[in-house]
Amino acid sequence: GERRKITILTSDIRGFTSTSERLPPEEVVTIINFYLSSMADVITSFHGTIDEFMGDGILVLFGAPTTRENDPERAVACALAMQLAMESVNQQIEAWGLAPLEMGIGINTGEIVVGNIGSEKRTKYGVVGKQVNLTYRIESYSTGGEILISETTLQEVGESLLRIGRRKLVQPKGVKQPINIYNITGIAGEYNLFLKEEEQIFLDLTEEISTQYTILEGKHVAENLFLGSLVKLSAKGALVKSASQETSSIPSVFTNIKLNLFPSTSGVLTEDIYAKVLDKPVESGYFYIQFTSKPPEVKTLLDAKYRCLSSFSTYR
Amino acid sequence: GERRKITILTSDIRGFTSTSERLPPEEVVTIINFYLSSMADVITSFHGTIDEFMGDGILVLFGAPTTRENDPERAVACALAMQLAMESVNQQIEAWGLAPLEMGIGINTGEIVVGNIGSEKRTKYGVVGKQVNLTYRIESYSTGGEILISETTLQEVGESLLRIGRRKLVQPKGVKQPINIYNITGIAGEYNLFLKEEEQIFLDLTEEISTQYTILEGKHVAENLFLGSLVKLSAKGALVKSASQETSSIPSVFTNIKLNLFPSTSGVLTEDIYAKVLDKPVESGYFYIQFTSKPPEVKTLLDAKYRCLSSFSTYR
Repeated sequence: GERRKITILTSDIRGFTSTSERLPPEEVVTIINFYLSSMADVITSFHGTIDEFMGDGILVLFGAPTTRENDPERAVACALAMQLAMESVNQQIEAWGLAPLEMGIGINTGEIVVGNIGSEKRTKYGVVGKQVNLTYRIESYSTGGEILISETTLQEVGESLLRIGRRKLVQPKGVKQPINIYNITGIAGEYNLFLKEEEQIFLDLTEEISTQYTILEGKHVAENLFLGSLVKLSAKGALVKSASQETSSIPSVFTNIKLNLFPSTSGVLTEDIYAKVLDKPVESGYFYIQFTSKPPEVKTLLDAKYRCLSSFSTYR
Repeated sequence: GERRKITILTSDIRGFTSTSERLPPEEVVTIINFYLSSMADVITSFHGTIDEFMGDGILVLFGAPTTRENDPERAVACALAMQLAMESVNQQIEAWGLAPLEMGIGINTGEIVVGNIGSEKRTKYGVVGKQVNLTYRIESYSTGGEILISETTLQEVGESLLRIGRRKLVQPKGVKQPINIYNITGIAGEYNLFLKEEEQIFLDLTEEISTQYTILEGKHVAENLFLGSLVKLSAKGALVKSASQETSSIPSVFTNIKLNLFPSTSGVLTEDIYAKVLDKPVESGYFYIQFTSKPPEVKTLLDAKYRCLSSFSTYR
């Protein structure tokens, strides 16, 4: 074993575990394997070491076992290429009649212990250390399509090379001081990879959709149930108005929430929807969300509503 | 791929990531590999399938790829044998002059998707589903030396065969209703494996040890810092008295907290200590904790204090 400074990349499909419960097992494996194969091709072309597939999650090392000069830079470029490759992955997945996948990525640079880890009969090249856990935590703040990198990785790559979307101040567990994480949307120079800047357009719903929601904070589901309504809709998210006066009814940014809608037509509560609260300022009593997992019935309903709204709103 | 009902066991070493930062890398790898080898021998003898080593963590399947009639029962027996085997693991680790390891285990039974998962060039037998995530969450409630099983696993094995320590009602993220989890300390019948019932003895400190602590709730470290003092000490934990009148200064059971002590002799704050709040009733303004990670200086200090107290308190 040795202690070495490397750049770690982790990715996973937002909401895939929930989605997987609704699909036949063959489809689950077909989707994951198609997705992992595409990502593995990208990662290999950037000389990343795939340390682990865990379900739909991937752990990639840049700088181990072989150190190269531009490891942090290649890790960020690889993440951008992975996000860009999701477009063709999703074309295939939609051709199969399934909902597109949304991947979140976290990247961090730091000292960890690397070595052949395992039992006598089964060892593999593995990693241990706080910086590995921190990378997973950074990834957990991402929404679908996002790449979040730590301050350390940013300094290693240099700001001048990167297009930075937004800075977020977070305090992950096990870290003494709050840290800045950066949403990266492009890299210049030899890699020259840029994500499409998709500004989400939130359109006013002509009729609000009633909802109930609970705030999922950390390990425990908080014992709270709030009423509210969706008042705007985008292709991926919504603006929620809380019906409660309590400040505790407004979840903090990055918090995950669970929602059920009461569509006026049916009067029946929908199945569970999961969403993450966006870091997007709004007047008090409201918050923006991005969906991370939607049951098919909800997807059909909201997609139809959004298409309908956007067809009327082109010139607004 | 196929959907199959299996029993899942996950384990990890409490606080090992923090410990690993303080040790030379060779020692980290030596300790992990010695520990994993011992556990792998136990798991294999109970016909468990080791799906994954992740650092110091292990993911074991009972019922995949091969279903056997008594999978849940064998999983529980295996967990007990693993905890019992930690005694000889720790004898070796203490012979190396290092602090003993404490392992937590979670077990759950449910339907998941199993299959050959991965990219074209790299597939392995893997698992996907909510029940896998739930097992990790159950494990996260454990303190060192504990085995926690879900209600489903309990029903499959049957209460009559098990010695149950304590029931805990928890609400992990992604689960609709709170669930019961059970601390298992023994299994009768053909396996006949029982953990030593170590009642922790908390002894009054003759002089309270001042402390500051923060409550680590979920992903974010709460922005709070409380003052208090250790008023009792056990071999593995302490009773903390909060100096604050605020109810928010008393963390909920199972919450992880970070502490720093102000030993009266030095006047300097110790390095970070991590602990989990125990499910042990106590009067208001107080809470019991079990340490999950202690810097060596703190271990030396508290071990000496406890030895001193226990030598005086034998007949109290």
